[in-house]
Amino acid sequence: MGAVSTVGDRVERTPKQDRSRATRQRLLEAAVACLAEHGWAGSTVSVVAERAGVSRGAAQHHFPTREDLFTAAVEYVAEERSTALRALFPQGTTADRRTVVAALVDLYTGPLFRAALHLWVAASNEDQLRPNVTELEARVGRETHRIAVELLGADESMPGVRETVQGLLDMARGLGLANLLTDDAGRRERVVAQWAVLLDDALG
Amino acid sequence: MGAVSTVGDRVERTPKQDRSRATRQRLLEAAVACLAEHGWAGSTVSVVAERAGVSRGAAQHHFPTREDLFTAAVEYVAEERSTALRALFPQGTTADRRTVVAALVDLYTGPLFRAALHLWVAASNEDQLRPNVTELEARVGRETHRIAVELLGADESMPGVRETVQGLLDMARGLGLANLLTDDAGRRERVVAQWAVLLDDALG
Repeated sequence: MGAVSTVGDRVERTPKQDRSRATRQRLLEAAVACLAEHGWAGSTVSVVAERAGVSRGAAQHHFPTREDLFTAAVEYVAEERSTALRALFPQGTTADRRTVVAALVDLYTGPLFRAALHLWVAASNEDQLRPNVTELEARVGRETHRIAVELLGADESMPGVRETVQGLLDMARGLGLANLLTDDAGRRERVVAQWAVLLDDALG
Repeated sequence: MGAVSTVGDRVERTPKQDRSRATRQRLLEAAVACLAEHGWAGSTVSVVAERAGVSRGAAQHHFPTREDLFTAAVEYVAEERSTALRALFPQGTTADRRTVVAALVDLYTGPLFRAALHLWVAASNEDQLRPNVTELEARVGRETHRIAVELLGADESMPGVRETVQGLLDMARGLGLANLLTDDAGRRERVVAQWAVLLDDALG
């Protein structure tokens, strides 16, 4: 484990490791913000390093290539979001399905979705980026599906339930896309309210 | 009407006008293909002109700016698609809703959707492009909604029906996005089959 020693549940880190971890995190957050605001063409390691207040050399120490930085960034933020989503509905609490549907749809609006969208579109034209982004997207998609099934209390052993939940997440992705150029919040709220009712009927 | 004379329902054009029309159409089709394959950054008027076998000067005669060319291109193809969709289900014929849902979802896969997606994402970061693309998107969206309501035989005077149809089109858009990096046809077919059932129940 190198300089990391585990004492019970606690992981002790040296101040140097803490700084390195903090630097990495600042870079990841800056990368997502940059991608959401400027798109792939405007997002280079230099631009991100400057935004994060980190030297270009330090940035390249953490992420040797631009591809490494941006796929790691989108993955990091997606994981943060999954954790936050689970925390919203701790096990044992019950939430009505409309609230859960609204929280799931919220995952697809805002800077993370914008950043991920820029990454997908860039990957669709860039061979260097595509394999990593495709794999990342599959992983994030599976995790989101798992959380959705759990929070909705859906029984996937019933015929059609799996596809019902998948369609809901597809709808959420489409709503995110509809929000890209204009603020679509009002319409989205009405669509979510209606489909939460249909979904509630479908899931029984 | 200038050199165009209308004889009954027929519009007569000079050979020169026919050539100009054909050139314009070739440019629009080349622009969509180019956008779908290379994205916004790789799509210039020169690249499109070359692909269409048209001189750069002739291209600029039809479309003074890059923005003009690409918004016109996406609009042109969207209109062609709407026409083709209506032609699939001529008035008086009846199609079951699953077939209609599948045909609607098909609008969001393939080169037109890819081209439109590149245009949306570019517009989200480029002030010059945004107003035209936003307006185009609103127009295409309204037209698609109108066709969907008609083909599904949906009664929008009933509460919730409008939002049910909107959610379906949001799902279709999300399915298009899911198809960007990988061939998602198998999963999409199962989701469409299930959501067609939910929709059929909801629309009564």
